[in-house]
Amino acid sequence: MSNKANDPSLSSWISVSPNSDFPIQNIPFGVFLTRDDVITIGTRIGDYAIDLGALHQLGYFNDIPLTDDIFLQDTLNDFISDGQKTWRLVRDRISEIFDSTNPILRENIEHQKTVLFTMEEIEMQLPVQIGDYTDFYSSKEHATNIGSMFRDPENALLPNWLHIPIGYHGRSSTIITSDTKIRRPKGQTKPKGADKPIYGPSKMVDFELEMAFITTDANKLGETIPIEDAEKYIFGLVLFNDWSARDIQKWEYVPLGPFNAKNFASSISPWIVTLDALQPFRVASPSQTPEPLPYLRQKGNNSYDINLEVSITPEGGVPTTVCKSNFKYMYWTMSQQLAHHTSNGCKVLSGDLMGSGTISGSTPDSYGSMLELAWQGTKPLRLEGGQTRTSIEDYDTVTLKGYCSNDEVRIGFGQVLTQLLPAN
Amino acid sequence: MSNKANDPSLSSWISVSPNSDFPIQNIPFGVFLTRDDVITIGTRIGDYAIDLGALHQLGYFNDIPLTDDIFLQDTLNDFISDGQKTWRLVRDRISEIFDSTNPILRENIEHQKTVLFTMEEIEMQLPVQIGDYTDFYSSKEHATNIGSMFRDPENALLPNWLHIPIGYHGRSSTIITSDTKIRRPKGQTKPKGADKPIYGPSKMVDFELEMAFITTDANKLGETIPIEDAEKYIFGLVLFNDWSARDIQKWEYVPLGPFNAKNFASSISPWIVTLDALQPFRVASPSQTPEPLPYLRQKGNNSYDINLEVSITPEGGVPTTVCKSNFKYMYWTMSQQLAHHTSNGCKVLSGDLMGSGTISGSTPDSYGSMLELAWQGTKPLRLEGGQTRTSIEDYDTVTLKGYCSNDEVRIGFGQVLTQLLPAN
Repeated sequence: MSNKANDPSLSSWISVSPNSDFPIQNIPFGVFLTRDDVITIGTRIGDYAIDLGALHQLGYFNDIPLTDDIFLQDTLNDFISDGQKTWRLVRDRISEIFDSTNPILRENIEHQKTVLFTMEEIEMQLPVQIGDYTDFYSSKEHATNIGSMFRDPENALLPNWLHIPIGYHGRSSTIITSDTKIRRPKGQTKPKGADKPIYGPSKMVDFELEMAFITTDANKLGETIPIEDAEKYIFGLVLFNDWSARDIQKWEYVPLGPFNAKNFASSISPWIVTLDALQPFRVASPSQTPEPLPYLRQKGNNSYDINLEVSITPEGGVPTTVCKSNFKYMYWTMSQQLAHHTSNGCKVLSGDLMGSGTISGSTPDSYGSMLELAWQGTKPLRLEGGQTRTSIEDYDTVTLKGYCSNDEVRIGFGQVLTQLLPAN
Repeated sequence: MSNKANDPSLSSWISVSPNSDFPIQNIPFGVFLTRDDVITIGTRIGDYAIDLGALHQLGYFNDIPLTDDIFLQDTLNDFISDGQKTWRLVRDRISEIFDSTNPILRENIEHQKTVLFTMEEIEMQLPVQIGDYTDFYSSKEHATNIGSMFRDPENALLPNWLHIPIGYHGRSSTIITSDTKIRRPKGQTKPKGADKPIYGPSKMVDFELEMAFITTDANKLGETIPIEDAEKYIFGLVLFNDWSARDIQKWEYVPLGPFNAKNFASSISPWIVTLDALQPFRVASPSQTPEPLPYLRQKGNNSYDINLEVSITPEGGVPTTVCKSNFKYMYWTMSQQLAHHTSNGCKVLSGDLMGSGTISGSTPDSYGSMLELAWQGTKPLRLEGGQTRTSIEDYDTVTLKGYCSNDEVRIGFGQVLTQLLPAN
């Protein structure tokens, strides 16, 4: 895999602070509304958003096979459909344009005025039109914790879990991006000891720390994707907060899984970090025993070392980090998830989003949900300032952050931030 | 509700046989490819498809507020977004244009040449881009049958079932229309007595007899839809065959519900019959005990009397009707389903599709799946010609049909026909 843009020795003529998530080696993709109320596709270096539609109109991508309006769209779906070869050509070209040794745009102030925006001048949008959203359940620690609480601690992991990357379908229409506020959902619950259910605001709103990958067109109806090809259909990843109402979930989820407990909102970070940019951070995934069936078997390093954290900020208060986890804890890899998803011929398209499932590690401070962190309300979390929490309260803001780093470079995802408003 | 087009005394200058599903009182909506390879939105009377794009260009809808290209699209989503008032104006206008007493188009042979197609000249397409697909589980008889087989006959119906119109999210990308062939899915199963799962072609492919409704834009994120308003967001209905692989389902479905057992294909009939056209066939739904919570409570007749049947045709053989059921058997109504779906603020959009769940009646010949008809393989069905079936075999064609009728008029759905090919 050749990714010139990943060269750690590169630096940009746009100044980038050392702890920025967006050095020239990142080059994520997103969609934003400019100061002129135009929607465009863009990327980001340091604290500048870059209008790729304008760059293309100015001829900077002329010898790359792209349609004229590929970046003048309100979603990335068509660009993602163009496939891996095109993504790489574009990412490498952006890397060249902003390389500190390249004077062409660096010395063209008129072009810069058209192309560069400070982050305050723009408003990030949902980056893709999500056709289908699937959520997996691929952290062994999370599945074990939930099985212990909702079912039987002695048999927490169900018999199929070690054989299948278990997943289920979710709701696309309520996936929102960072800074979109949500309402506490109402729903049916059956309070402990009650003989009848009630309808009202959920009393147990929770976050779920996840990541999600976004695919390109991968197959035709009836075709499978071999596991060794799966990664080439993955465009990139985002942070993903799969909001959950635990009291609604408990009452509704048997036998067909969570429904209204989850479909009121899920939040994603606005910049899609490409799988290409993450290549320096490949690591082994946990060893799998029993060995998976052949269609799920793979060799080498198939996970990614991505540091994750969650903070809660009460209204007018300061953030408290309540969880530190890592994407590499996932038992099932993205390739295994995608190979399994298509193992029956299910069609995968550009803009489909697949969530990892809650990413919990083995220590209690790495659990990826309040349900686990406060262990069903029995161990309230103490926040900076003295308040405690067993679930998310009205006006709390939940923020997910994620980044990779090594001695040479830091590639980050920025954040996804969501405030919970009271029920209507 | 005023629906001039429903007047049973109307007749069309296009001849319609008495047992046609498509008299002038139906006026369904669909999308088709014409003999000139153009995609257009159309309707159908008798055995003629009518190009609404061409009619609009010829000025027949001039005084109705419609954009110029509203029918020159490859999906109905934008027209559905226009809302109930517009659907009714258009349907009433079509009724006027084809009324036997109206000479305008009847006597304009040149216009007819542009507008009318025989069914052989066109190719029906998927009528909507389906954003989100939800499947409910609303037949009490079906839920009881499945609970008896998969769990415990003594407690077949789970405690939440009589309180919640249970539903789950499905896969939009694999919804296909009639005449699209599908492949037998492969997947993970755990054969009886085996200590490990295997991967290979499903041995228990099944149909599910369902109907599905298609919505318009209904609410904003966080808003609920009161049950008394729910029907105005329902554009119309189609026949729906929710293909299922029972052996995959059995192994994968606990705890998050069916996934690969269902997402390989679901088939819909190509003509969307409007809820307006079905008004003469409103009937009471089954009485509900215990009384639902207030947000699900409704008065009056809230179901529809739609006769349904399923046939199986082996390769080179004749069709055998294996099931006769009726939409009115559903315990939960469409209004209850939609009110429940949005009771937590979940956003519903134009083109969303909501399946009823398998529609089983109380007698064994009304069960809506092979799983129930052949009772888990213990009661093989005998087909015309002597073959037997406990599940769908390679090259079998499964056909769903549906119609309403009273003394005055018959309103039908046509059919959805799907042939199962062997696994790849």
